[in-house]
Amino acid sequence: MRIVKLEESSRRNLLELLLKRSPSQYGTFTDKVNEIVETVREKRDEALFAYTEKFDGCKVNKKNVQVTEEEIAEAYEKVDEELLSVIRKALVNIRAFHEKQRRYSWFDSDESGILLGQKITPLNRVGVYVPGGKAVYPSSVLMNIVPARVAGVKEIVMTTPPGKDGKMNPAVLVAAREAGVDRIFKAGGAQAIAALAFGTESIPKVDKIVGPGNIFVALAKKAVFGFVSIDSIAGPSEILVLADETANPRYVAADLLSQAEHDEMASAILVTTSEALAEAVNKEIEGFLEVLERREIIKKSLDNYGHILIADTMEDAIEAANDIASEHLEIMTKDAFTVMTKIKNAGAIFIGEHSCEPLGDYFAGPNHVLPTNGTAKFFSPLGVDDFIKKSSIVSYSREALEPVHEDIMRFAAQEGLTAHRNSIKVRFE
Amino acid sequence: MRIVKLEESSRRNLLELLLKRSPSQYGTFTDKVNEIVETVREKRDEALFAYTEKFDGCKVNKKNVQVTEEEIAEAYEKVDEELLSVIRKALVNIRAFHEKQRRYSWFDSDESGILLGQKITPLNRVGVYVPGGKAVYPSSVLMNIVPARVAGVKEIVMTTPPGKDGKMNPAVLVAAREAGVDRIFKAGGAQAIAALAFGTESIPKVDKIVGPGNIFVALAKKAVFGFVSIDSIAGPSEILVLADETANPRYVAADLLSQAEHDEMASAILVTTSEALAEAVNKEIEGFLEVLERREIIKKSLDNYGHILIADTMEDAIEAANDIASEHLEIMTKDAFTVMTKIKNAGAIFIGEHSCEPLGDYFAGPNHVLPTNGTAKFFSPLGVDDFIKKSSIVSYSREALEPVHEDIMRFAAQEGLTAHRNSIKVRFE
Repeated sequence: MRIVKLEESSRRNLLELLLKRSPSQYGTFTDKVNEIVETVREKRDEALFAYTEKFDGCKVNKKNVQVTEEEIAEAYEKVDEELLSVIRKALVNIRAFHEKQRRYSWFDSDESGILLGQKITPLNRVGVYVPGGKAVYPSSVLMNIVPARVAGVKEIVMTTPPGKDGKMNPAVLVAAREAGVDRIFKAGGAQAIAALAFGTESIPKVDKIVGPGNIFVALAKKAVFGFVSIDSIAGPSEILVLADETANPRYVAADLLSQAEHDEMASAILVTTSEALAEAVNKEIEGFLEVLERREIIKKSLDNYGHILIADTMEDAIEAANDIASEHLEIMTKDAFTVMTKIKNAGAIFIGEHSCEPLGDYFAGPNHVLPTNGTAKFFSPLGVDDFIKKSSIVSYSREALEPVHEDIMRFAAQEGLTAHRNSIKVRFE
Repeated sequence: MRIVKLEESSRRNLLELLLKRSPSQYGTFTDKVNEIVETVREKRDEALFAYTEKFDGCKVNKKNVQVTEEEIAEAYEKVDEELLSVIRKALVNIRAFHEKQRRYSWFDSDESGILLGQKITPLNRVGVYVPGGKAVYPSSVLMNIVPARVAGVKEIVMTTPPGKDGKMNPAVLVAAREAGVDRIFKAGGAQAIAALAFGTESIPKVDKIVGPGNIFVALAKKAVFGFVSIDSIAGPSEILVLADETANPRYVAADLLSQAEHDEMASAILVTTSEALAEAVNKEIEGFLEVLERREIIKKSLDNYGHILIADTMEDAIEAANDIASEHLEIMTKDAFTVMTKIKNAGAIFIGEHSCEPLGDYFAGPNHVLPTNGTAKFFSPLGVDDFIKKSSIVSYSREALEPVHEDIMRFAAQEGLTAHRNSIKVRFE
């Protein structure tokens, strides 16, 4: 990996390079995606099935578009016993962590008869998109379904593209069932997103769509935003390791590579105050590259977006980490918890040398759906908050309204809204 | 107002009619708006100033684009004393309600050395858009700035279009200052949204943009979503009154009109189990229409989107209210709090005959920026949650990782992510 001194200019160049990976940049497919979305909105099942045949090479119809109990049973037979067992263990932790995120309706009142509060209601129906293709991750299925289930969503429907033979990935079906999905449909791409957003004869309209996908899926989600809610649009994966001379270079190297293997757009960055560590990490990486299976992807990812930045001070290193706002941030320094208090922007923060990122991907419990590409400055990990909404509650007695009613009338009159004023006035005529 | 029996078909027709008002439907300006956004992104101040001259008829430059302390002092001199006084009273309530929404970082730990949690961080910088033109609402300025301030946002910048003479609305400037804005810029429309999203030499890049605006503003916000966060896109205002025979028809009528006066796209709906109430409300509306100033707007709004629906039972009425998911919902029935427990979808719920909607617009404390156009099914009122974000915290000791490390390695291997597996493995070699 290239080693660069952390300076204002190197930081800015790196930021610009990373942001170029943003899915928000890919404008070229917008027209194509909008056409698919509008066609499915208008022609519903007919269009959905036609696109599925065209893009997935699979003929589906009203009768077989929904995955049956038989198909799920078949998936359980095919799936590795070991995988099923580890899915069940992981689910215990994922559920436990999300249970702690539950929100409760609240109110406050005073004796004049004022009651104000917020009512929490789960979303009614949610759509989970699961991509097909080579990168099939049962762990992502768990991470998208569990928070919705914990939030109390009534119905969770999932869509995922079928294979040419109409078969679905068994690990995905099993993970979905274990996590508590209600219905699964054979549909992928922009056409699946449109079906979930507007509903078809077969696929019910949902209130929110979550889950990762390729550029067509991302653009379709953006197109339907407002008609339904969506999660944040996922970009390529990232890790930033913040380390000093106390860090174990072998651990740092292994963790950087664990993100770099995701795809060629993934980014692995080490920010360190120790040049010796930087050199040692590079050496470890060379060793790992000889033995790791996905070394071709890793090499390209490191060539494109891998960086080691040498900072003069830990304060500078922390500032760079906050600027980059990485999806995953590992802290392997002295006083790692103190360093954590200074972190403003990161999707998930892994503290200490045994808290490696794959622990969070699979097992610890926090969600692995995290804001990427600098969006940790304003977006959060997927969680229970994404599947509830709030309604304000306002209740005033006459006794409470009386002493303030003239003030409210004045404010309304000042804004020229005289029917607003009238609504208060009639109560005291 | 037209009186219709509540049936499956009338409900569906009404829903379709209301959804036609969605700002997500206005596709025709998209190209124009995207061009403005891209031009400002590229040419920054130069483009921003050129558009301000073109659209607002006002020449601004680097030196005068930011509102000065002198301009704010001048606004204080111009603004009505009475308005200032009521703004200050309202601010006490708005702040108090939003303080109750504050979120706190949390963690949970167990004795094997596992610590998991969520760190809450306020957004660093937020942009508040305030529209110009005829509908200038100082109350909206308060409602957009206060939750950001309470959340702990470091810097709040506001943009609003200047008049032809370069002057700003004094009530808006005063409201902004009272609510705690940091900097105010003279910029409006899609060009202001682009400037906030990408930054120019004069206007700093923000992390999130909130505030209402016309269709250009709404489309520009949609275009920059992903580069920054945005609030939900505001549609025309709405009220739904749920009432039985115990309701006061004069109050119901006055409250319906208070929303209808907003604009011709606004919607006022009464759902009631009492035909007698429906008739009485209609009579009261006729009386009010003779005296209310904004009767031309009100008449058009009622003609377009005003409905009285007669329901057989209160359960049917509640179901219709949940289907319509109104921005404002007033409950004037027996056992109004019991009815409230059955409400799933509404921006704000006003309970009892003295809890009229203008009380919430100006004074009670809950935010008046609410989800419109059926989006209360998945969006929430603006609040402190909109100005914070979460980072997951994961810390495992060696003692905690050891007993589960083989499970994690298995899960990673099952997904074919062998560098993930390696990251766990190196800790136990």
